[in-house]
Amino acid sequence: MPEVRLNHITGDWVIIATERAKRPEEFVRKKEKKEVPVYVATCPFCPGNEDQTPSETFSLKGPDGKWSVRSVVNKFSALTPEGEIVKNKTDFKQYISGVGLHEVIIETPEHNKTTALLPLSHIEQILIAYKNRQLAFYEDPRVEHVIIFKNHGIEAGTSLEHPHSQIVGTPVFPGQIMNRLGEAIRNYYYVDFGECLYCTYMNGEIREGERIVSENESFIAFVPYAALSPFHIWIFPKRHSACYGHITEIELVRLAGILKDILLRLYIGLENPDFNYVVRSLSTQGADAKYFHWYISVVPRITQNAGFELGTGMYINTALPEDSARFLREVKI
Amino acid sequence: MPEVRLNHITGDWVIIATERAKRPEEFVRKKEKKEVPVYVATCPFCPGNEDQTPSETFSLKGPDGKWSVRSVVNKFSALTPEGEIVKNKTDFKQYISGVGLHEVIIETPEHNKTTALLPLSHIEQILIAYKNRQLAFYEDPRVEHVIIFKNHGIEAGTSLEHPHSQIVGTPVFPGQIMNRLGEAIRNYYYVDFGECLYCTYMNGEIREGERIVSENESFIAFVPYAALSPFHIWIFPKRHSACYGHITEIELVRLAGILKDILLRLYIGLENPDFNYVVRSLSTQGADAKYFHWYISVVPRITQNAGFELGTGMYINTALPEDSARFLREVKI
Repeated sequence: MPEVRLNHITGDWVIIATERAKRPEEFVRKKEKKEVPVYVATCPFCPGNEDQTPSETFSLKGPDGKWSVRSVVNKFSALTPEGEIVKNKTDFKQYISGVGLHEVIIETPEHNKTTALLPLSHIEQILIAYKNRQLAFYEDPRVEHVIIFKNHGIEAGTSLEHPHSQIVGTPVFPGQIMNRLGEAIRNYYYVDFGECLYCTYMNGEIREGERIVSENESFIAFVPYAALSPFHIWIFPKRHSACYGHITEIELVRLAGILKDILLRLYIGLENPDFNYVVRSLSTQGADAKYFHWYISVVPRITQNAGFELGTGMYINTALPEDSARFLREVKI
Repeated sequence: MPEVRLNHITGDWVIIATERAKRPEEFVRKKEKKEVPVYVATCPFCPGNEDQTPSETFSLKGPDGKWSVRSVVNKFSALTPEGEIVKNKTDFKQYISGVGLHEVIIETPEHNKTTALLPLSHIEQILIAYKNRQLAFYEDPRVEHVIIFKNHGIEAGTSLEHPHSQIVGTPVFPGQIMNRLGEAIRNYYYVDFGECLYCTYMNGEIREGERIVSENESFIAFVPYAALSPFHIWIFPKRHSACYGHITEIELVRLAGILKDILLRLYIGLENPDFNYVVRSLSTQGADAKYFHWYISVVPRITQNAGFELGTGMYINTALPEDSARFLREVKI
């Protein structure tokens, strides 16, 4: 019989469709093998074309002395960095001026190098760039919330092949985050006797073990009990902290390790699937919150949301989280 | 400057990306014209193959005396119709047995006929089937919430070409609906002095007029002020009612009229885009609620959600709602 599982963190019910569940191997979407060159003359992110991107905001050098990771203002920014916040509410209409920050983090000079295949020290540099930009974004008083994310592949909504992440600082606090925060606060104060919902949940997953994919001294990666979609993975820091930007140096090294591990398992096991990942975090001002816990959510885009998901916010997951986790654990990396 | 608009009904902030907005025509995705036959021997929904679908639960006849619309139990049901509700909560894990109802409503015997091109009297029959099945589903005490939806085209997540809708009765009340209901209740009691949030909002759209696409005596269709995506359309009944199943006969005729009107404008104006629509409604038991209002949401699938939307629940809409509405209004139907 199918099970409808509650995802306590997101507040969503998920139908785990045991009866029409597929074996993990069946989710591999064979792609046409396409040779991608290491350098593309027309790519604005390739070395030599630095003048095609707007102003650089941060960069790090590689062993060859050239840039290895750089962040630039997004040329096609969804929000505008100039101007004051204007708030308006007339009748049924409420808006705020679209002032905010939007940068692209170019992850490597090599056009064809996917994160999973980069050396650990390089992934560390990407994570340092995330930290630097998040901290800088939160210094802008117009920014209410910052989201860091990566779109890999067409199904994940990217239009540019060259490996990159994005960071957006919005002038509003998103409703979805508000709902989750509300849930976390309610749990902290009323349900869990002053324990962080995320810590409690993570400790449950650790105790049970069967959905864990990978682990090191500072991080744990697992397919959550009520995973919203096949191979949906969460990477939680073991140390309680509400803000990514407050990650320590040693944690950063270990995060690079577990992120590479997870992305490599997906790359090999599911043959380079399209995916998104997002870093969920509170602000630097909220870093000490006892009820929230930053984490990374990795979402392979191998199934399609349809009317049921749109209309309910519920999900139908045709992969058993326990099977997905076992499959990924057993991938030889 | 871009505007960040608040969608009061969903609680989502939407970035209306004025600066990178496209003209309505630019959203047309040219598809390969494919000749679809009126009858496919292997299609389980085509006439003559009725024995390939599980038990029929409802049907209506056309002028030729044969079935024109029929609903059947979904062969690949996400939930199982047999069995008792079992609830379980151990440690961090909470689930309910996957008991529920899931039917397919076959909209026409003709394999290649899209809703927009059906005669009005036929669309009326589809809406009667929705009503009949919704009322029947809510008679099952195991059902907490019913969602009616249609997936049209691959991008909208359908695998079967033959025109059909689906109806699902879940044993849980979805978190997304709970959040929206909470918002509607809060507005009803605290913000709007005892006025339904939906009625208030609809009256604002009617007063302003520029986002309205179509209207008749009982219904109004508009691109909402904070539309989550390009050409996102809401069809609201003008008479306050929280439950679709309580629609009157004359309203049903008029709903068929406005639904055909809207689907035809999309079909002609955007060249048969993939789309989902969902009927959002409370239960028959909740039909008299003063704070909720049933409606239909039509979502053309012409843009792709990516990490930003996943990570925030916010949307970036690259079409101005006012432009989308004007474009659809001007389509010659």
